[in-house]
Amino acid sequence: MKKIGVLTSGGDSPGMNAAIRAVVRSSVARGLEVYGIYDGYKGLVEDRMVKLTRFSVSDMIIKGGTMLGSARLPEFKEPEIIDKAVDILKNRGIDGLVVVGGDGTFRGAQALSERGIACIALPGTIDNDIAATEYSIGFDTALQTVIENVDKLRDTSSSHHRCSVIEVMGNRCGDLALYSGITTGAEIIITSDSEFKLETVIEKLNYFDLVKQKNHAIVIISEKITDVYQLAKEISKQTGFSGRATVLGHIQRGGSPTAFDRLLATRMGDKAVERIVEGFKSECICLVNNEIVAVDINEALNTPEPNRKQLVELHERLV
Amino acid sequence: MKKIGVLTSGGDSPGMNAAIRAVVRSSVARGLEVYGIYDGYKGLVEDRMVKLTRFSVSDMIIKGGTMLGSARLPEFKEPEIIDKAVDILKNRGIDGLVVVGGDGTFRGAQALSERGIACIALPGTIDNDIAATEYSIGFDTALQTVIENVDKLRDTSSSHHRCSVIEVMGNRCGDLALYSGITTGAEIIITSDSEFKLETVIEKLNYFDLVKQKNHAIVIISEKITDVYQLAKEISKQTGFSGRATVLGHIQRGGSPTAFDRLLATRMGDKAVERIVEGFKSECICLVNNEIVAVDINEALNTPEPNRKQLVELHERLV
Amino acid sequence: MKKIGVLTSGGDSPGMNAAIRAVVRSSVARGLEVYGIYDGYKGLVEDRMVKLTRFSVSDMIIKGGTMLGSARLPEFKEPEIIDKAVDILKNRGIDGLVVVGGDGTFRGAQALSERGIACIALPGTIDNDIAATEYSIGFDTALQTVIENVDKLRDTSSSHHRCSVIEVMGNRCGDLALYSGITTGAEIIITSDSEFKLETVIEKLNYFDLVKQKNHAIVIISEKITDVYQLAKEISKQTGFSGRATVLGHIQRGGSPTAFDRLLATRMGDKAVERIVEGFKSECICLVNNEIVAVDINEALNTPEPNRKQLVELHERLV
Amino acid sequence: MKKIGVLTSGGDSPGMNAAIRAVVRSSVARGLEVYGIYDGYKGLVEDRMVKLTRFSVSDMIIKGGTMLGSARLPEFKEPEIIDKAVDILKNRGIDGLVVVGGDGTFRGAQALSERGIACIALPGTIDNDIAATEYSIGFDTALQTVIENVDKLRDTSSSHHRCSVIEVMGNRCGDLALYSGITTGAEIIITSDSEFKLETVIEKLNYFDLVKQKNHAIVIISEKITDVYQLAKEISKQTGFSGRATVLGHIQRGGSPTAFDRLLATRMGDKAVERIVEGFKSECICLVNNEIVAVDINEALNTPEPNRKQLVELHERLV
Repeated sequence: MKKIGVLTSGGDSPGMNAAIRAVVRSSVARGLEVYGIYDGYKGLVEDRMVKLTRFSVSDMIIKGGTMLGSARLPEFKEPEIIDKAVDILKNRGIDGLVVVGGDGTFRGAQALSERGIACIALPGTIDNDIAATEYSIGFDTALQTVIENVDKLRDTSSSHHRCSVIEVMGNRCGDLALYSGITTGAEIIITSDSEFKLETVIEKLNYFDLVKQKNHAIVIISEKITDVYQLAKEISKQTGFSGRATVLGHIQRGGSPTAFDRLLATRMGDKAVERIVEGFKSECICLVNNEIVAVDINEALNTPEPNRKQLVELHERLV
Repeated sequence: MKKIGVLTSGGDSPGMNAAIRAVVRSSVARGLEVYGIYDGYKGLVEDRMVKLTRFSVSDMIIKGGTMLGSARLPEFKEPEIIDKAVDILKNRGIDGLVVVGGDGTFRGAQALSERGIACIALPGTIDNDIAATEYSIGFDTALQTVIENVDKLRDTSSSHHRCSVIEVMGNRCGDLALYSGITTGAEIIITSDSEFKLETVIEKLNYFDLVKQKNHAIVIISEKITDVYQLAKEISKQTGFSGRATVLGHIQRGGSPTAFDRLLATRMGDKAVERIVEGFKSECICLVNNEIVAVDINEALNTPEPNRKQLVELHERLV
Repeated sequence: MKKIGVLTSGGDSPGMNAAIRAVVRSSVARGLEVYGIYDGYKGLVEDRMVKLTRFSVSDMIIKGGTMLGSARLPEFKEPEIIDKAVDILKNRGIDGLVVVGGDGTFRGAQALSERGIACIALPGTIDNDIAATEYSIGFDTALQTVIENVDKLRDTSSSHHRCSVIEVMGNRCGDLALYSGITTGAEIIITSDSEFKLETVIEKLNYFDLVKQKNHAIVIISEKITDVYQLAKEISKQTGFSGRATVLGHIQRGGSPTAFDRLLATRMGDKAVERIVEGFKSECICLVNNEIVAVDINEALNTPEPNRKQLVELHERLV
Repeated sequence: MKKIGVLTSGGDSPGMNAAIRAVVRSSVARGLEVYGIYDGYKGLVEDRMVKLTRFSVSDMIIKGGTMLGSARLPEFKEPEIIDKAVDILKNRGIDGLVVVGGDGTFRGAQALSERGIACIALPGTIDNDIAATEYSIGFDTALQTVIENVDKLRDTSSSHHRCSVIEVMGNRCGDLALYSGITTGAEIIITSDSEFKLETVIEKLNYFDLVKQKNHAIVIISEKITDVYQLAKEISKQTGFSGRATVLGHIQRGGSPTAFDRLLATRMGDKAVERIVEGFKSECICLVNNEIVAVDINEALNTPEPNRKQLVELHERLV
């Protein structure tokens, strides 16, 4: 009987457990034996894994985090490390692998598939930074966590003529900032796509304060663009608003996945097993035109970033 | 300057306020005057409306329900009623209308457009029963409300070897039951598509209890299929589980919209105004292949129901 | 070394796991061995129990339901059943027991203590129907679940000039209805203390509709007082509101406990172990004047119901 | 007819709106006229206020923040400023005032009462730093917000063998840290009562990692004790855990109040009006032994901090 492995790698995202559950149950339903590999590629090269049954994943669809653990292993591109992983898998008779993670994880899968291990990758990242898929597993939950917290800041901001500056995750990809900014009615959205100029922010805020008579303002900004605590200080100094910064941080990675992420993860996990059974070797599962499809990993890794111009204009039109 | 009206009709759904906000702000941004019509077509034929500014809709994006109110007016197909509405709109110089609601609302828009009023309809229903769009405004929020409650029932069910029977909304369209069933790991899903047989349910439950050794079971069923309190009694009688029924009811219509619904409503509302400005007269805004597009209303009303066979099989494979 | 047992009995309530965790860890810290008994008194007379360590209860403080399971065993007053339980405990060398549940559970503890088993009872019920304690474990969480759902119904009620009738748990004790009614600004609260008259409800609603010009109304009613679906129908018939009924049911028993319940359960569980170590034999742990105290079980069972007159008047004054 | 004013001052806390609602409706019910004063004492000395009716506060019981706005006015102890406030109130014929806030707010009330204005103060602060009352309005909601976020961090921490360091509000009073630490099962709690030593934290964490084999750890720390980002770095360096810091910040002030805070605010607001009507001049409303009572302001301001030794020991026993 065919044996496959499943692992989660890189930063965790809500829905990874739902994906693991789907991979396990879909494998069992299709007559495969499935092994859970601990802590991503790190656990793989250390040969740490356990056989999973349909019972091992009971109730997992509702849980945040990843039951298999996750880790980063930057060295997982060096030939000897890859070879070691291949040997371990071959010794165990595992000829297929489903990996869940971001593009680093995808590259690992690519390397393994080049050495004959059938690898199917699922996009699991809260940043939505896999251009090949419309949504990655965890993005919707992280987005929901962000807007619920921004809604709370709105209460207290409007009580104090305050400007709340909220830093969200996603540097290379600004979707968390852009989507949460639009859906919370934020006055200003700053991502790595839009160049950041302090003067511009101050100018806009003074306009919202003096011309538009807003009694509070919300600024949402992607991580690693500027020191938001400093930015808040400048806002207090140069505008009528008193600035306050909040860094949401790792809260965005936690929580029970939304229905959207549970379904996405479940469909993708099932599809991955289907593709392995059908003999495909180097693919990533994506949501394209609202359909679950398989895309060649190289192709997926080279998909150009989508253009968010329309959404940016939408925000400017409605703010 | 061009004047348009906006109304919400039929059962309310979370995100209607976000849609109203988008219509108002997008209109103002494009130089239109916009009137909010109270209580749907009922308020229209009673000439109850108010001018809305961008301030009228501040903070509305996060609020459940509809600030304009909603009502059902079955008579809104009789020629004289339609004529009355047309006269009222003409007297006020309103030549365009954005309506948010279900298919009844769409038919009203169709009738008005046939008499020369430009009407753009947005799908606002928690049932996701507008086949022309992949998702309707409010479905994602209702689905989230359902799974959060089912997750709570899971706690208590597993403490008592119980079978929880949960009735959700959506009779003509079983999406709420099907999607929530898959995303909560429900043992059994019953919709109007799958014929309901008591014996089959009992048989399956006994299988889960005796063969699969599950210590609790969840059954999700669409409204108007059977008396769920009676069904729970039969389960207690004929299986090892003690059955308990819960009818979620109108809770499913309430709550602050999810990020997904806020974005969908915002994009659709903006698109509707764009189409009116471009001179289109009888369309509905839909999400197709994850894009916001305009579809002719007649076409939209005649779109065949999507086939959910794949999702049903997915559920059976993983349960 | 001393051995004790812990069990949860009757209807489950959020915080029971936090109580079990506290009992286990406090026992280990005080050098006792502790056994978890499955499914309440039923599991006890069937001698189903397992040794628990501090690891067995990791992460349990945040989980709803009860990890030990719960059941009702009405026969657990018949002498031979009690004797059987005592024999099982003696054979295992267990001379102390902590039980969590409602007054039925307390009576069981009383019977056991009369036969020489040291029993300390914790009030675990969402109904808050143990008069000896200001709050029982689970009440605050159930109350929070109720108000979050009523807040959702408020959105949709006000969109349709509707009267939402919500049935909550707690028949003998109306606290869930009274407290949720006050904290959601419900127009009418009906408990077993206030006699129910349809005419009065209709009269009040017409007053709120016509005189006070309210555009929606909320009625909260305790279970087992009247058929709420019928009541909603009458409201639609006899008032300007369209009535809609919701039965919250078992949702009220689920969910992660609130901070209040986690703390209450933790303090009570620890106190119970302290009392057993100190050699007390037949007590219940209560919150009195905001202090955790031990009360003789007989005394606790005979404490008269608190008078809620002040809260009822407060509601009438502010509605 | 008697006229009174109501204001919220200092940092806002969830439940202030519920308190305002109770003050307004209780006043109307008792035949008083009531004015809402904007932005605390600042708005008072600027004579910015509006008459409130029972309709002005509809639906306010569920809203976070404060509808009247709040501000800090440190100068509100200088005689001439106080005199100005007194003159403004006298000119308007307002002879009573209900203020909601922290101890700074209480001192303002004290000063006003010394000049003949009847002042009743309500404790509204998320820090629970008013020793005279068992709970202040907003504490329970802030605590709930903290534990929900810590529960989310737990998911992701356990996926990465991580130590999450969470900074919560409350410097002078460590209750938010202590209560949230106990109710989330945090490994380490650091407040201004417990002296902070880096070595001790590192030592404990290494013990949890190596001896207790915990796969993640949570450290909760009050604000203004140390740089938590720096602390997280040290943890990564000196322990087996990778440290991550989160500063919850103003999120803790927002959100719809819990049932507990809604009830507390409602009872306190009603009591304040009762006391004014009865002619009392300088009191603060407190929760003592779970009863709503009135305490002389001087007395309240001089109540010694409660001793949290028992709770600290409880945490150490169970961790």
